[in-house]
Amino acid sequence: MPLWNVYCPESAYSAGEKKEFAQSVTRLYVSYGLPAFYVNMTFHEFPAESFLVGGDPADDFVRIWIDQIARKVPEERERAWMEEVEETIAPFVRDRGMRWEVHIDTTPRGMWTVGGIVPPPENSEAEQRWVAQNKPTTWYSGS
Amino acid sequence: MPLWNVYCPESAYSAGEKKEFAQSVTRLYVSYGLPAFYVNMTFHEFPAESFLVGGDPADDFVRIWIDQIARKVPEERERAWMEEVEETIAPFVRDRGMRWEVHIDTTPRGMWTVGGIVPPPENSEAEQRWVAQNKPTTWYSGS
Amino acid sequence: MPLWNVYCPESAYSAGEKKEFAQSVTRLYVSYGLPAFYVNMTFHEFPAESFLVGGDPADDFVRIWIDQIARKVPEERERAWMEEVEETIAPFVRDRGMRWEVHIDTTPRGMWTVGGIVPPPENSEAEQRWVAQNKPTTWYSGS
Repeated sequence: MPLWNVYCPESAYSAGEKKEFAQSVTRLYVSYGLPAFYVNMTFHEFPAESFLVGGDPADDFVRIWIDQIARKVPEERERAWMEEVEETIAPFVRDRGMRWEVHIDTTPRGMWTVGGIVPPPENSEAEQRWVAQNKPTTWYSGS
Repeated sequence: MPLWNVYCPESAYSAGEKKEFAQSVTRLYVSYGLPAFYVNMTFHEFPAESFLVGGDPADDFVRIWIDQIARKVPEERERAWMEEVEETIAPFVRDRGMRWEVHIDTTPRGMWTVGGIVPPPENSEAEQRWVAQNKPTTWYSGS
Repeated sequence: MPLWNVYCPESAYSAGEKKEFAQSVTRLYVSYGLPAFYVNMTFHEFPAESFLVGGDPADDFVRIWIDQIARKVPEERERAWMEEVEETIAPFVRDRGMRWEVHIDTTPRGMWTVGGIVPPPENSEAEQRWVAQNKPTTWYSGS
């Protein structure tokens, strides 16, 4: 469900650092009860000429955009949520002297499937089974 | 209008398979009366280190995200629509033993142009001309 | 805030043309009072086999998708806004004989940070300082 897209300069992160980054992000969502496998993270590496900020090629900028689906952050919780996101990413952006920007969109739960299965409702027993198994399994009758 | 983004491992699909995949998806939308050229499909290939599920690099996972614009799926039709999508993609994900996940967002029709032209209304005569011609042509006065 | 994603064929644009394109887009938003550094633009280059229109590989097509955050275009202004966008991009698509398509989504302002900072309100004094400095700086107490 959360699909994290990290747009970054080529060679910004080693394979090990990408993994560490993705594991930090995964821990954040798991702490809210989500199955770990819901967290998808992609690194799109751009040469400076293809990654521009204010019209200038950038080699020190990380742009993260996220689609969240499984959980809708209530408006009054948005700021607190962004602070948790910032804390999670700080070692990978701020602490490396990069510039960075993040935005999140929420997309409809009804148009989302994992392994062909409509995911179980938030905090349901079925969702807890998905957490425990760390993979999608049928939890309803029918397809 | 539908913009399909297929995030996949490097070499997951041959050129021929990508074409077959895109043609299956195109047929699905054409069966609902849309012009074939509305269907845009991109394959983004990632090395495992840049494509992580639950913090682990993945070489057996396909993540599809879609922006739909021309048609808004009514909420009560969402599940049936996802089933059609699943049926369409099954040969390219499930039947190959891949893990996969799909989500769809709907974006505003009013902020969409094709070839600089605001597309004709759903099921209008003008849209049927676009279907027949399979390209955008002016259908209103003004720009 | 606006995040422009330009999907294009490999070698569609030289480094200089990408910069020119990004600068034209930046000028458009700056003319509405936005800080230049809000404008992020990425070029994703695809081989024809990975970029399909209506099921056919494309080497003459440019697909632009945009997330806007800082400003919400009122519905009655959408068409006028799209015309400004079209005018801005025409030299890089239409005038080169390419086919092209554009769509814009609007995402929630409350889930957006720049350099770890919640951006100042539209047309505020703080936003004007961001324009003048062309970088994000703290403008509120707290984190």
